[in-house]
Amino acid sequence: MSQIRGVGIGQGVAQGPIARMTPPLAAPIDEPATAGVEEETARVREAMGVVARDLEERGERAGGTARDVLEAQAMMAEDPALESEVDSRLAAGKNAEWAVFDAFASFRDQLTALGGYLGERAADLDDVAQRIIARLRGVSAPGIPDPGHPFVLVAEDLAPADTALLDLDKVLALVTTQGGPTSHTAILAREKSIVAIVGATTADRLRDGETVIVDAAAGLVISEPSADDLDQARRRADDRLRTASAPLTPGALADGTPVPLLANLGNPDATNAVALGAEGVGLFRTEFLFLGNQSAPTITQQRESYERLLGAFPGKKVVVRVLDAGADKPLAFLNDAHEENPALGLRGLRALRASEDILREQLTALAEADAAVRAAGEAADLWVMAPMVSTTEETEYFVTIAREYGIRTAGVMVEVPSSALLADRILAHADFASIGTNDLTQYTLAADRLLGSVAGFQDPWHPAVLRLVREVGDAGRRTGKPVGICGEAAADPLLAVVLVGLGATSLSMAPTALADVRASLATHTLDDARRIAEAALAADDAASARDAAMSAAIPRERQLP
Amino acid sequence: MSQIRGVGIGQGVAQGPIARMTPPLAAPIDEPATAGVEEETARVREAMGVVARDLEERGERAGGTARDVLEAQAMMAEDPALESEVDSRLAAGKNAEWAVFDAFASFRDQLTALGGYLGERAADLDDVAQRIIARLRGVSAPGIPDPGHPFVLVAEDLAPADTALLDLDKVLALVTTQGGPTSHTAILAREKSIVAIVGATTADRLRDGETVIVDAAAGLVISEPSADDLDQARRRADDRLRTASAPLTPGALADGTPVPLLANLGNPDATNAVALGAEGVGLFRTEFLFLGNQSAPTITQQRESYERLLGAFPGKKVVVRVLDAGADKPLAFLNDAHEENPALGLRGLRALRASEDILREQLTALAEADAAVRAAGEAADLWVMAPMVSTTEETEYFVTIAREYGIRTAGVMVEVPSSALLADRILAHADFASIGTNDLTQYTLAADRLLGSVAGFQDPWHPAVLRLVREVGDAGRRTGKPVGICGEAAADPLLAVVLVGLGATSLSMAPTALADVRASLATHTLDDARRIAEAALAADDAASARDAAMSAAIPRERQLP
Repeated sequence: MSQIRGVGIGQGVAQGPIARMTPPLAAPIDEPATAGVEEETARVREAMGVVARDLEERGERAGGTARDVLEAQAMMAEDPALESEVDSRLAAGKNAEWAVFDAFASFRDQLTALGGYLGERAADLDDVAQRIIARLRGVSAPGIPDPGHPFVLVAEDLAPADTALLDLDKVLALVTTQGGPTSHTAILAREKSIVAIVGATTADRLRDGETVIVDAAAGLVISEPSADDLDQARRRADDRLRTASAPLTPGALADGTPVPLLANLGNPDATNAVALGAEGVGLFRTEFLFLGNQSAPTITQQRESYERLLGAFPGKKVVVRVLDAGADKPLAFLNDAHEENPALGLRGLRALRASEDILREQLTALAEADAAVRAAGEAADLWVMAPMVSTTEETEYFVTIAREYGIRTAGVMVEVPSSALLADRILAHADFASIGTNDLTQYTLAADRLLGSVAGFQDPWHPAVLRLVREVGDAGRRTGKPVGICGEAAADPLLAVVLVGLGATSLSMAPTALADVRASLATHTLDDARRIAEAALAADDAASARDAAMSAAIPRERQLP
Repeated sequence: MSQIRGVGIGQGVAQGPIARMTPPLAAPIDEPATAGVEEETARVREAMGVVARDLEERGERAGGTARDVLEAQAMMAEDPALESEVDSRLAAGKNAEWAVFDAFASFRDQLTALGGYLGERAADLDDVAQRIIARLRGVSAPGIPDPGHPFVLVAEDLAPADTALLDLDKVLALVTTQGGPTSHTAILAREKSIVAIVGATTADRLRDGETVIVDAAAGLVISEPSADDLDQARRRADDRLRTASAPLTPGALADGTPVPLLANLGNPDATNAVALGAEGVGLFRTEFLFLGNQSAPTITQQRESYERLLGAFPGKKVVVRVLDAGADKPLAFLNDAHEENPALGLRGLRALRASEDILREQLTALAEADAAVRAAGEAADLWVMAPMVSTTEETEYFVTIAREYGIRTAGVMVEVPSSALLADRILAHADFASIGTNDLTQYTLAADRLLGSVAGFQDPWHPAVLRLVREVGDAGRRTGKPVGICGEAAADPLLAVVLVGLGATSLSMAPTALADVRASLATHTLDDARRIAEAALAADDAASARDAAMSAAIPRERQLP
């Protein structure tokens, strides 16, 4: 048995044979064709047709938005204009691979020059060209492998295009050598409940076909496992299946202390969250309404989304965050593209203040949606909060302007260290605080959460981050105001217990994490949670904090039947 | 009387008539010459000669490195190759202004294409062209005005090139509409003890020639002052002169508690620091050895600088910071230019760890310099510290490696919130901590210290920053380890008292700030300092903290004779 360490996403465990991403093809060479023009043309036509049919089939299997992307790619593979470009190169005596490569590249450059939406299609075109060239060479297309049986996928990292095509019935687990806990792969794994380990830097030494155990809870890939190891992993996987199908009770500690379990949502489709027992929404990100647009959406467009969301949670709490643009989510009409350090720039509430109309329109739409849903007799409890608040003055500003529009419950995100340190003064003005652990960790450790070379610092278990959470928890208790958590940290079942021990009164997470967190909370009393939190706080670093919490948590778990 | 608010630099007060920066010239237009070729050529030659003589004279007056720059510019003004480029345009019927503009622009583009040192001279060439065109038009050259008498300079912001030419006998005070407390103008003002107010956004309404009072301590420009106002300002300026010429006693509180006053130095020239009574060096920045080079300096090159520095402070403490590259000071051989947020990237100790040879060479050079100076019998007390430390593990790493080279006193900068929050654990490993208030403020408020749109957040008086300083001060007291301050905050006489009240055991600053801080400390006991610090900590924001400290400080000052 040998182990490869990485960052586990979620609590799952899986086992199966390795299949690695097929690597990119070597670029074709501009040599004369060895076969005749007619023969080469026939080969290219056949390859284009096969690739087009394959993409269509994949589209049908994938469904949803992936289907649209794949059907568009299938059309590219047989585009008449592209065909004639290829033909003219073949007629000039070029070889088939080069003719395809060069013809697609010329189209690609034209698309890129157009920019915008069309420019972004350039990568799709590249992918189609690669598939046709692979077919011509008789090798596998680069990308997701298809070994014909379920497998553990090993990759450097997954691009968004790759993930759209993942067949979740086939992929038993994901292991990436790059990427951190907030990488695209990690987010996908959380959303889809895929067992995953990211940043497992030495996973490239795994061989195709060998059987491994992927233990996300421990952050380990175990190669050459014993029969006992495999049995134990299978039992744990079965236990998790039972947890996932446990009754959807409200979140609570073992002593009955309620800890509402809420969902983080990025659009108003709440089906999944409701099905998984979310007791409301702890973070509704409104960026989807704005991103990719040249101007802000109208009040009417916004109101429709908000009504749909509020209508899905009658009688429940729904926390909406006003637009959080800037940093890694810049908007042309709101942000300055020339900031040296956009994560430390005019983002979140700072940017909204500089374009106050956008904030006022969003509050108008929220107030109107609230009124409409109330009138229809299915009122949700609407809370509205501002992102990236760093001072008391900003808190007063936001709460005052929200009240102007009749928003009853107005709060702030605590994701900047200053807000955590002055939480008592912030909560003197705000109705609630919601801690964004991802950004709070980024700023507390001064390490870009999206930068691989400093990914090791991005760990919400770091005792400095826990200290700041405790500051906010204590302030919440003193002022009698709720303190939620809406960062990824809340999705870690053990860290969730620690956060409650530090004073969090509700937890919001990706809906797929709800079952594990619900089960974990139910095994600890509030006294336990405080004791486990103290153990983590006393540690020197993130790894020791996790270990200390685990040790402190064990005795109680052993007492359970 | 009316007031304009800004950020005062230092404690000075000055009065005098306004003179504004002369604005840039409108660009010449490519119209045919109205005069003959011969006449236009003669006009250009005359203008070039006058500008060259003027630059030479300015060079002689400025002396030092400014002289070299200005003499090089004088040569550009009469460069034969440029003259012939101008001539060929005049011969083609172009007008004189356009011929100069276009000829200089073509040279400029060639320089820029060469890049590196020559590329950076492009701006000098532009400046010369502007001066010649101004002469042709019979208007003032853009830049520093020369009204023929001492004046208060009002500008948007000063470029480095402008500041080299400032005649400090003529400039009574600086007022800028842009820029924050860490802008180039602010740094210059601190270095040269010029009374200055930056970020006075409404100062552009001041009229040329009107008399104002510039009160840096209050952060106010007072226009239409009364005779009483002027008298009072004059008395305060006289008092400051007396402070500046007060005896150079060691830093101490009114009750005798010693607070060593140290200098921040950016190169080994310690003449000024010693003359102003620095009791050692609290921050020796070693970047000057590395910046602008394609590779790291040799051990011998480094050792020479360190020996010179240590030799200037026999028997005194000298704190050297190992290379702090990255963020706004990237080095091609050490940093990745493609970070999205370099301030949150692989900078400081993180970058040195990734290129450990550079760290080891620097420690070797420091140890060798220390040994050489000791052998010569003029030993300084060498302390070495690492920048941008954010975890206990990094602290252990640095202290261990420094010990390998025989460094007796090894510590860390506290400039990341996590280090302040875990100061007790950091100080369990490090021999001392030195708080960098500039970066600590930047990260605590999550606001880029060099970005104008968020400059309002960059204030070390913010109670969240003071809270973190207190954490480190408390940890220092508990562990018996020294806690220094080496950010700009230590140069603010009242904030210096607050920092001591929070537990700082030494203060390091630009040497020109020493006299004011020395005088301020001498008027407060340690109990006072703690009481004033408590008042500031209890405030809601930076401005109220400053006001609260001021109110708390007054009673004691009134008791003095």
